[in-house]
Amino acid sequence: MSFSQDLLPDAGENLVTVLDLLRFGHARTRPELAQHSGLGRAVVSQQLGYLSELGLVGEGDLAPSTGGRAPRKVAFRADAGTLLVAELGATSLVAGLSDLAGNLAFQHEEPYDIGHGPSRALDRLAQLFGSLLERSGTSRASLWGIGIGVPGPVEFSTGRPISPPIMPGWHAYSIRHHLGELFGLPVWVDNDVNLMALGELRAGHTRGEQNMVYVKIGTGIGAGIICGGTLHRGAQGCAGDIGHVAVREASEVICRCGKAGCLEALAGGAALGRDGTLAAESGLSPHLATVLAEGRKVTGEEITKAAQRGDPVAMDLLLRSGRLVGEVLATIVNFFNPALILVGGGVAAAGDALLASIRENVYRCSLPLATRDLQISFSPLGDQAGLRGAAAMVTDEVFAPANIVRWLGHGSPVAMTGLLSA
Amino acid sequence: MSFSQDLLPDAGENLVTVLDLLRFGHARTRPELAQHSGLGRAVVSQQLGYLSELGLVGEGDLAPSTGGRAPRKVAFRADAGTLLVAELGATSLVAGLSDLAGNLAFQHEEPYDIGHGPSRALDRLAQLFGSLLERSGTSRASLWGIGIGVPGPVEFSTGRPISPPIMPGWHAYSIRHHLGELFGLPVWVDNDVNLMALGELRAGHTRGEQNMVYVKIGTGIGAGIICGGTLHRGAQGCAGDIGHVAVREASEVICRCGKAGCLEALAGGAALGRDGTLAAESGLSPHLATVLAEGRKVTGEEITKAAQRGDPVAMDLLLRSGRLVGEVLATIVNFFNPALILVGGGVAAAGDALLASIRENVYRCSLPLATRDLQISFSPLGDQAGLRGAAAMVTDEVFAPANIVRWLGHGSPVAMTGLLSA
Repeated sequence: MSFSQDLLPDAGENLVTVLDLLRFGHARTRPELAQHSGLGRAVVSQQLGYLSELGLVGEGDLAPSTGGRAPRKVAFRADAGTLLVAELGATSLVAGLSDLAGNLAFQHEEPYDIGHGPSRALDRLAQLFGSLLERSGTSRASLWGIGIGVPGPVEFSTGRPISPPIMPGWHAYSIRHHLGELFGLPVWVDNDVNLMALGELRAGHTRGEQNMVYVKIGTGIGAGIICGGTLHRGAQGCAGDIGHVAVREASEVICRCGKAGCLEALAGGAALGRDGTLAAESGLSPHLATVLAEGRKVTGEEITKAAQRGDPVAMDLLLRSGRLVGEVLATIVNFFNPALILVGGGVAAAGDALLASIRENVYRCSLPLATRDLQISFSPLGDQAGLRGAAAMVTDEVFAPANIVRWLGHGSPVAMTGLLSA
Repeated sequence: MSFSQDLLPDAGENLVTVLDLLRFGHARTRPELAQHSGLGRAVVSQQLGYLSELGLVGEGDLAPSTGGRAPRKVAFRADAGTLLVAELGATSLVAGLSDLAGNLAFQHEEPYDIGHGPSRALDRLAQLFGSLLERSGTSRASLWGIGIGVPGPVEFSTGRPISPPIMPGWHAYSIRHHLGELFGLPVWVDNDVNLMALGELRAGHTRGEQNMVYVKIGTGIGAGIICGGTLHRGAQGCAGDIGHVAVREASEVICRCGKAGCLEALAGGAALGRDGTLAAESGLSPHLATVLAEGRKVTGEEITKAAQRGDPVAMDLLLRSGRLVGEVLATIVNFFNPALILVGGGVAAAGDALLASIRENVYRCSLPLATRDLQISFSPLGDQAGLRGAAAMVTDEVFAPANIVRWLGHGSPVAMTGLLSA
């Protein structure tokens, strides 16, 4: 189904206004659409007509009457297209299928070393996408686009990683071109933590707040920033890189970035593993020594388990991590004044002790006004945040006014493949 | 001149789109307006008709031809209204008259102690406004609104200061109500550093950059944040409060906020004065001792003069200030990834030595990608930034789509007086 973009009397803004109100759940009936958009009811009906022709909206049940005749609900058809989404981690690969609302079905995770370089990783990812499509019986004709998260800074306009510290061989590699060629689909790429923040925003877990910071504490540490309701990528696309902020205490520990005393080098998962291994080897922590004796590695996860079993050294390591993260977040709270901080990533599994330590230090080091209504909690989406954010990135791009007019005449965003700069 | 808002077919968005393109100088002819707005030429002409009826646009010269008939320029009529603008500092009061483009005429500055409380300060300000109007021969009928900057956090929606540390007696005081009653005009209030950032943005000195941090180093230290081209006020309106970030070195100095080791307590103008006085009294700095001996106070300004005359102790104080500010800014650069940092405020008059020290420490402590294209320079508007920003705040509010429909039927934003929440 397609129609000419000449039908649009404007640059797509009204169409997108109506569509966004529906897909974000801010309006569900024609009267609500008119009220929230400020558009006349005739214009709303016209735009709904276009969206219906495109298969993007359908009629729903009757809504409760507010006096007169009960209005019929209008629903965004999230099943109008399918997205391929993936999250490349330092040590794992997660791939999934998503509908246009970010609902995930059919996903697959496997260990992988991102150090193998882009060509092998993306070919493996393409295989995974292929088998997910096969397993789910999804027709390739229903595919709309691909969204990828990577653990490093990305030049968003071209989808290329820029000097990513833990992705050797990926600098300036065109992920867009590689996957676009293989699938004939438009591809968007962003930093993984940015996508986690976006995933929480679109899933409605930011409780309507327009200013939010998502902190991922995994092997490394990074942040995603929602500013005024949209993702803030920064001038070079590297906003949120708080892992390499210098902590307040003097430290001789050299970070993988080459500087001494970076937050990530003292409080991230790799740092916990390193310090936990020392505690195991020196006999300071009997619990962690057992881990080594059983031939396993001391990881953030093992330290969490040991702390939960009452190991004081493991608990101290977690509390120190929380304190250092909290002190850096306090500076960010003073500067940015967010309403909400969400904490995710592997180390976040350490649970309440870590969160309590982060909270205590943020409150101790920030101004009272900035923390008056500040909420600090775990990421509600947990390890689904990245994939949901990858889906949200694709739909946000596909439905952006400047983009929608590029594919509307063709009926599907697939027409954008090759039109994006790579 | 007035016309019914029934004429508007939408919620004012198209009118504001065309108006903003003209007043920000992004378009100057009908073809440029159509191109930049994405609106059809008929819609552009219609909106220009409304704006012309309102006296907000006028015809200009012929623009150079781009092939066919030379198009006639359309100009924003910045003289359509006059604004009363003021900046309340800790120790001074500045008042001025501005046109709708933020061009300042007739201003007056005098020493004032903000500790006298809101009632006295605002009555004095009203006197100053009155004499400026008289001096300039400005008719009260031409006035559109009032914009005020204050040295503390402000709840923007009501125009009330919130627990401002250096404004005793001002907490929750309705500046809007006080001045609105006296003048019968709509009043907007914001934090002074926010307005400085906005002033630079609207004056075009941010070189088109969408992500900018303005740092004011005066008696205290604060920042204003431009995120994605708009002012970021934060969840409680206290974004940018970097003066109370803890510095990295251990310190026993207690800040006026009650915490130890705040940036402002070690690197602001008051801190420089305190440490400079000690250096004068102890005889470490002969230049500063002379200042004391001549019965003057050792201020940031005197320290700057002494440093320029080669006093090594004074120079050390400035360099330390620059280092501490630079280290905090490095964290902000990693987190926010701005394209531009502008430095203003009284201590900024210390000149190149201070700026060099700030730059050196930002570059030393930030990631290379985040500083690759980062510019750090002095505020081009200098001490005019706050008043220009106050004017920009008023016009941004008056011309916001949600507001313009509230006064359009009356021909002037004066109709909004009393409609704003106070």
